[in-house]
Amino acid sequence: MKRNVLIIGAGGVAQVVAHKCAQHNDILGNIHIASRTVEKCQQIVDSVREKGSLKTAGELQAHALDALDIEATKALIAETQSQLVINVGSPFINMSVLQACIETGAAYLDTAIHEDPGKICETPPWYANYEWKRRELCEENKVTAILGVGFDPGVVNAYAALGMDYFDSVSDIDIIDINAGDHGHYFATNFDPEINFREFTGRVWSWQNRQWVQNKMFEIKRTDDLPVVGKRTSYMTGHDELHSLSKNLDVPNIRFWMGFGDHYINVFTVLNSLGLLSEQPVTTAEGLEVVPLKVVKAVLPDPASLAPNYTGKTCIGDILKGKKDGKDKEIFIYNVADHKEAYEEVGSQGISYTAGVPPVAAAILIAQGVWDVQKMVNVEELDCKPFINLLNDIGLPTRIKDEEGDRPLSY
Amino acid sequence: MKRNVLIIGAGGVAQVVAHKCAQHNDILGNIHIASRTVEKCQQIVDSVREKGSLKTAGELQAHALDALDIEATKALIAETQSQLVINVGSPFINMSVLQACIETGAAYLDTAIHEDPGKICETPPWYANYEWKRRELCEENKVTAILGVGFDPGVVNAYAALGMDYFDSVSDIDIIDINAGDHGHYFATNFDPEINFREFTGRVWSWQNRQWVQNKMFEIKRTDDLPVVGKRTSYMTGHDELHSLSKNLDVPNIRFWMGFGDHYINVFTVLNSLGLLSEQPVTTAEGLEVVPLKVVKAVLPDPASLAPNYTGKTCIGDILKGKKDGKDKEIFIYNVADHKEAYEEVGSQGISYTAGVPPVAAAILIAQGVWDVQKMVNVEELDCKPFINLLNDIGLPTRIKDEEGDRPLSY
Repeated sequence: MKRNVLIIGAGGVAQVVAHKCAQHNDILGNIHIASRTVEKCQQIVDSVREKGSLKTAGELQAHALDALDIEATKALIAETQSQLVINVGSPFINMSVLQACIETGAAYLDTAIHEDPGKICETPPWYANYEWKRRELCEENKVTAILGVGFDPGVVNAYAALGMDYFDSVSDIDIIDINAGDHGHYFATNFDPEINFREFTGRVWSWQNRQWVQNKMFEIKRTDDLPVVGKRTSYMTGHDELHSLSKNLDVPNIRFWMGFGDHYINVFTVLNSLGLLSEQPVTTAEGLEVVPLKVVKAVLPDPASLAPNYTGKTCIGDILKGKKDGKDKEIFIYNVADHKEAYEEVGSQGISYTAGVPPVAAAILIAQGVWDVQKMVNVEELDCKPFINLLNDIGLPTRIKDEEGDRPLSY
Repeated sequence: MKRNVLIIGAGGVAQVVAHKCAQHNDILGNIHIASRTVEKCQQIVDSVREKGSLKTAGELQAHALDALDIEATKALIAETQSQLVINVGSPFINMSVLQACIETGAAYLDTAIHEDPGKICETPPWYANYEWKRRELCEENKVTAILGVGFDPGVVNAYAALGMDYFDSVSDIDIIDINAGDHGHYFATNFDPEINFREFTGRVWSWQNRQWVQNKMFEIKRTDDLPVVGKRTSYMTGHDELHSLSKNLDVPNIRFWMGFGDHYINVFTVLNSLGLLSEQPVTTAEGLEVVPLKVVKAVLPDPASLAPNYTGKTCIGDILKGKKDGKDKEIFIYNVADHKEAYEEVGSQGISYTAGVPPVAAAILIAQGVWDVQKMVNVEELDCKPFINLLNDIGLPTRIKDEEGDRPLSY
């Protein structure tokens, strides 16, 4: 039974992870939070203590760590006796943290694919460029590594895998992510702008007719009438989950759709067209070398600051289409989360909440031995039923909508 | 008779000034061009030589100069024996260059009001904050200083003063500046973006009912059916000329209107709302201190680069309304300039052309003794008839439209 969690990262998602781990520290053991800026970790520790989130008495400590430094990360894992490492830092650090886990035997969990700071939208499948190169090493060392176990990727991969059981064959999986929330600002991103915009500035990869297809951002859209959030337009977007589902599920068409309002698209289009979202440096007339995207990040609201006044809900789920007993069938498996409820429970907005709760559920399942598979996997390769049941209990209930109606889903 | 011109600045307007001075060097004498970056001055020199713009043999030289350094500027005026200084550099250097002229006796000409880099939209009248504080000193030293003698301010001040003669009383002067040109880029500014945006990021001052009135940018608009460029929407904008015309002409309402397309306004609004047009520094996550506006400038096209492909025309003029013989009367005095013709003649686009030709006309009038007034003046305080006649001859013809039709205007 693995115990003691090291959380790497100190943003909005790390805040949720820390609170949720604290609520289950009878199972998870001691909790350590590490990032470059120890003050940000300490703020999370203080927030957990203020809200009284710790279920039982136990260690809860902040640490300064440069997670690109593998030796330092190994030393902290050893020092804190952590057997569970939840990496919710920037996607630039995945490979270093994974290496530290492989060398120490700690289980590794993350919520996004590794990225090279100088590249965007690399050749698919993205996992093959980085994480999957360590599959054999994980297996040899009996290291449990669960990749992409946030909401999307993560829970939506579980929805896809479990949804397959309702069909004889599935032709289409469309993952839809709608944030119908309102933060009250002229413009803001829900995650680190630097990471957030990188999702949209390059090519859009989708899996269609069992092939990778390229499109431009905002080129293809759809409108769905969804539970709770109503009629919403979403745009085909490149996203992590396609890069494992396309390999692991026998489905010819898998696409990801992100909801955007016209105002968001307008602001994004202006910034992008001017080159202000570029990760490549420019030189000012005074000779200063600056990455425009970092300046945009500096003028935008800090995503963490949005939480207190965020209202409205998110709706994220999978539409599956296929055949059952010779007839066409369609189902929607989804979750609805509420920004205000998330803030009241853990001090973060709903986007961070949906991303931060699932890796804690996964850590609990590893701690309990259910998911301690001692190899590298994506979520859809696991038995997803206990995951969904646990999420139902700890804040992210799943529902299913099909020809029999709209109802809670559990196993 | 004053001779020999020192041009300060090396942007698009300086390029026009240099070519036009060269075309009249029989009257103006030697030509010297100075700016911080001597290479940019040399490029202008090369362009003048390539086009064979020099009317007679004469000196034409590039110099490196920090025009904020009064002693260095005085030394260059002395060394080049310049009696005419045309300041078309950044508006941050006006007061230093003016001081150098006062101390050397050279005539001073500029095309925009002095600005403090750290302030925008100061208390009106703007001239009273800076230049007019040197009026007495100019008079004592018999220094000719002609302020704001570009097109707007400059020629439009002359239009206002001359237009008064058609009325018994004038109630309204509306100065309208329309650029109906197309540069083919997603977005670009026609001047240095840093200076250009400063015009629109603060309050809009106008002179109404003999008082200064404040509005917001893009708050008030009008649509006019104008000669050549047709139906155009323009927005009330704060602008230099109001700050002298309101003092020098007996007119209760004087407003400035700048034409903007919906796309320009959208891009401007996005950048401004996000804080990317701010002249105040922000700090990136990495600790780098950057002025956002300087980064926007770095990603936008260099205004000088727009010229070769610029097509279309500008229309700038004054609508005057008032009474004549007890009846309502309205006239429009205006110029239409063509971007492509400007480029073919002097290698700059039409906006730079309209701004750069007038100070050369003024320099010629000083050299000829007509405008060598040996004190500080704004254009409307001078006899504007020879100015209009000279502009008719050297590339900026004036027309008038009233109840008698639309026709050339000369005296």
